[in-house]
Amino acid sequence: MLNYILSTRPFRTQYAEKINQLSSDYQFVYAENLPESFQWEKVVITIGWNKEWANNLLQPAANLKWVQSISAGVDYLPLKAFEQQKILLSNGSGIHAQSISDHVLGILLMKTRGLFQSLLQQQTHDWQAKTISYNNLSEQVITIIGAGQIGQELARKLTLFGCTVNGINTNGRATLHFAKMSPLRDLYDCAKESDFLINILPLTPETHHLYDERFFQAMKSTASFINVGRGPSVDNVALLNALKNNELAFASIDVADPEPLPEEDPLWNAPNLFITPHISGLTAHFQELFMNIFLENFSSFLENQKLSRNQVSLESGY
Amino acid sequence: MLNYILSTRPFRTQYAEKINQLSSDYQFVYAENLPESFQWEKVVITIGWNKEWANNLLQPAANLKWVQSISAGVDYLPLKAFEQQKILLSNGSGIHAQSISDHVLGILLMKTRGLFQSLLQQQTHDWQAKTISYNNLSEQVITIIGAGQIGQELARKLTLFGCTVNGINTNGRATLHFAKMSPLRDLYDCAKESDFLINILPLTPETHHLYDERFFQAMKSTASFINVGRGPSVDNVALLNALKNNELAFASIDVADPEPLPEEDPLWNAPNLFITPHISGLTAHFQELFMNIFLENFSSFLENQKLSRNQVSLESGY
Repeated sequence: MLNYILSTRPFRTQYAEKINQLSSDYQFVYAENLPESFQWEKVVITIGWNKEWANNLLQPAANLKWVQSISAGVDYLPLKAFEQQKILLSNGSGIHAQSISDHVLGILLMKTRGLFQSLLQQQTHDWQAKTISYNNLSEQVITIIGAGQIGQELARKLTLFGCTVNGINTNGRATLHFAKMSPLRDLYDCAKESDFLINILPLTPETHHLYDERFFQAMKSTASFINVGRGPSVDNVALLNALKNNELAFASIDVADPEPLPEEDPLWNAPNLFITPHISGLTAHFQELFMNIFLENFSSFLENQKLSRNQVSLESGY
Repeated sequence: MLNYILSTRPFRTQYAEKINQLSSDYQFVYAENLPESFQWEKVVITIGWNKEWANNLLQPAANLKWVQSISAGVDYLPLKAFEQQKILLSNGSGIHAQSISDHVLGILLMKTRGLFQSLLQQQTHDWQAKTISYNNLSEQVITIIGAGQIGQELARKLTLFGCTVNGINTNGRATLHFAKMSPLRDLYDCAKESDFLINILPLTPETHHLYDERFFQAMKSTASFINVGRGPSVDNVALLNALKNNELAFASIDVADPEPLPEEDPLWNAPNLFITPHISGLTAHFQELFMNIFLENFSSFLENQKLSRNQVSLESGY
C-alpha cells in the first residue's frame, strides 16, 4: 500500500527521489490543487501544516503518524489533538539559526551605527550627521531571551564582537556561548541591566503578552527591544505607548499580532520602530537544510517509528 | 616662550593637563571665537585644519611645524604648501577602524537580509515578505579596495563570518586578513568577480572618479557597491545611471561630492541607493583614541621634532 508524505511546500525532484530510495512505499505529494478524490487516509506524514487539513487528518479514520514542522516554533499547530492521536511532531530548529542571527546582528548595527536614523533622514534629503546617535556594538549588554539553537548562534556571533551576552531560559541553566544565564522569572531584573533585549522564545501560554507595560517600564530608556520570536508575545498597546513615551529608545519587530499587520495598525507609524515582514528566517539553501533534518528523521521513522532529530514535546510546546 | 596647539575641536580638560605635563611650554587652544589679537606666530602645532588658517599659518613668518589630522584621509589639506614649509603631517588612521568596519558590516547585512528593502516597505505599511530578496552573508565574495587599518579590520570581521574577502592595494602586496590581494590596475577584473565592492581608498589624483561608467559596467548586475572612502572617487552621473539601468543591485554611500549633498541632488531618489551623511567614522571614545596617537607623537616631537605614529607622506598623500 502506498503512503503519502503531504507537503505545504514544493521541493526539488531530487528530494522526492531520495524519499523513494529510502522507501518505495512512500510518495511525496505537494499539496497544491489536490483532487476531490484525494485519498486522505493514505497520508502518514506531513511536511508543514495547513489548518484546513484538520478535518481529514485528525479524525479517527486518519492514519497520520508524524508532522515535520518547517519552522522552529510550533504554536500554530493543534498540539492537543496531536497528543490525543499520538502523532509525533518534530520542528525545523537549527535551519534558521544563521539567517535569524544575521538578521538580528543587522538590526543591532542599524541601531548602534545610526543606519536606521540615516535611512529616515534620506527620505527628506537631509544630510545631517549631528542628529545621528551612535555607540560601540562591542560595549553593549545584550540579553537574549530564549537560548535554543538560534539564541546560541546569535550569542556566539555577538561574543566575537566583544558584546556582553546574557541569556534567559526557563530555569537559568548554563548554556554555551552565554556569559550569564537567568531564569525567566528574573526577566524584569535583566531588563533593567540590558542595552538590548531580544526575544526568541516560542509562543506558549506562559509567553503570551510576556512583553507588557511592566516589562517596557523596567527597561532603560536608552535600551532597545527586538522581537524575532512570535508576535503575540508582545502586548502591542504597551509597546506603542512605551515608544511614544520614550520609555525605550528603539524597537524592531519581525513578527506581529496579527500577521500580516493590518495597513491601518498604529504600530506602522510608531516612532523609533522598525518593522520587518517576518523575514528573519528566510534562508538560502532552505531545501537542503530542511531535508537534512527530514530525511534523517524519515530513516529512523521507517526503522522504528521514532524521530532522531528535533522532536517536540507536545506537552511543553517546544 | 609659550607655544600654542591650536585645535578645531574641544577636548576634555584632562587632555590639556596631560599636554602641560609633557611640556609647560605648550598650551592647548580650542579655535572657537579666537580674539582679533590672537598671536598666530605662537601656533606650532594644529589638531585638525581649517581652510581659513592658511593665511596666517602658511606664510613665511609663521612657526607651524606639525599638523595632526583627525581623519585618516588628508585630501582636504594643502599638502603642497606643507611640503614647501616643511610642516610634518600625521593622520588619525586606526581611530575609526572599529566604527567604519561595523558600519560596513551593517550595510552588508541590510542588503543580504533584506532590511533596506523592509524599511522602504514600512513607509507604505506593506507587510510583504515575497518581495524581499536575501542571501547568506557567508557566501558573498567581497572585495575591499584599500587595505589599510580600516580595510584590514573589516576583512578580519568578514572572515569570521565566512565571507571570501579579497583586497586591492597599489601593488597587490599580501596583507593580513585578506584571502587574495590584487593591484589597483586589476580593479575591473576584481569587479567582475565580486558580490560586494567596498571603497576605502584615500582621495588622490589617481582615485578621483576611479568609480566610473566602465567600473559599474564591469560589476555583476547582482552586485553592490559601498563607498566609505571619499565622495569624489565616484563619478556621480555614472553611479546614478548604473542604478537606474539596474547595472548593479544596490549601492550605499557615506561620502558624497559635494558634502553636504544638496537637497536637490538626483542621487537622493536613486533606486536601491542608501545614503548616510558621513557617519561611518563617528566613534565612541573618540577623544581617548585620538589622544593616544596625539600624545605619543607629541612626546617624540618634543624629543627630536619627529613623529612616531601615523606620519603621512606629503608626496603620496597617505
